[in-house]
Amino acid sequence: MASEVNYTAWLRATKTATPKLLHTMLRIKDIDATLRFYVDGLGMRVLDRVDVPVRRATALFVGYGPDVCLELANRWETDSAYSHGTGYGHVAIGVPDVAAIFAKLEAMGVEVIQRPMALVENGPICTFVKDPDGYAVELVQTGDAAEEDS
Amino acid sequence: MASEVNYTAWLRATKTATPKLLHTMLRIKDIDATLRFYVDGLGMRVLDRVDVPVRRATALFVGYGPDVCLELANRWETDSAYSHGTGYGHVAIGVPDVAAIFAKLEAMGVEVIQRPMALVENGPICTFVKDPDGYAVELVQTGDAAEEDS
Repeated sequence: MASEVNYTAWLRATKTATPKLLHTMLRIKDIDATLRFYVDGLGMRVLDRVDVPVRRATALFVGYGPDVCLELANRWETDSAYSHGTGYGHVAIGVPDVAAIFAKLEAMGVEVIQRPMALVENGPICTFVKDPDGYAVELVQTGDAAEEDS
Repeated sequence: MASEVNYTAWLRATKTATPKLLHTMLRIKDIDATLRFYVDGLGMRVLDRVDVPVRRATALFVGYGPDVCLELANRWETDSAYSHGTGYGHVAIGVPDVAAIFAKLEAMGVEVIQRPMALVENGPICTFVKDPDGYAVELVQTGDAAEEDS
């Protein structure tokens, strides 16, 4: 699980003249299960892993590159699941082939919220699944297969 | 409130060979209050506004550009506030001058969670505020002022 990109170093070196969305932070209970989903399942990379013993916590930065990513925060002593209110929706990921990644995730036993379908007429194929903590993740067809009817 | 970028058209035209994080979706109760915060306060642009009468809902896409943005979803008949569980954390935004934007937001009456400070030794200056629905938003110094001690 060596990280290929040091996100925190990248962030420190980044100087922006205008504001920029950096990441979305979600609290997660089980690092191994989370990495199976986001790395093995969705093909993200671990951009950084910051263990903070004084806080008994670990921050994982995962994504397809440092420009925008997820911060997945784990408290070492958390033994109950995080709760979900009614407000937070999901993170959306554009993927070149929704059907392929959906099949892979389903084979991994990932919980499905919505099987791949066009949510609006002539819209892209989308699917919704749950990550190990129950956060919804939307996958949107942004590859050439989006041109096909289904 | 004309949108300068048609996000949904941009997204339909986007073809990615590899996966890509697109947006984070949050449910919001009051469109006007939300736009004051994200557009007037944080300087984002309305990238698209999609009213869906059949669903009695509006999706606002706001951000600094279409590459990564927020989808803010409003149901027209929602009259109670959305609840926040313990899991969702925040969206982080890199800004060139945390002190300036913090002063502006504070003058607008935005609720402050954490005034600007370095969260870790020699780390960037950060501040946390709440949007009108109570979602935490982190602002991280990514401009040259990050070089100064404070």
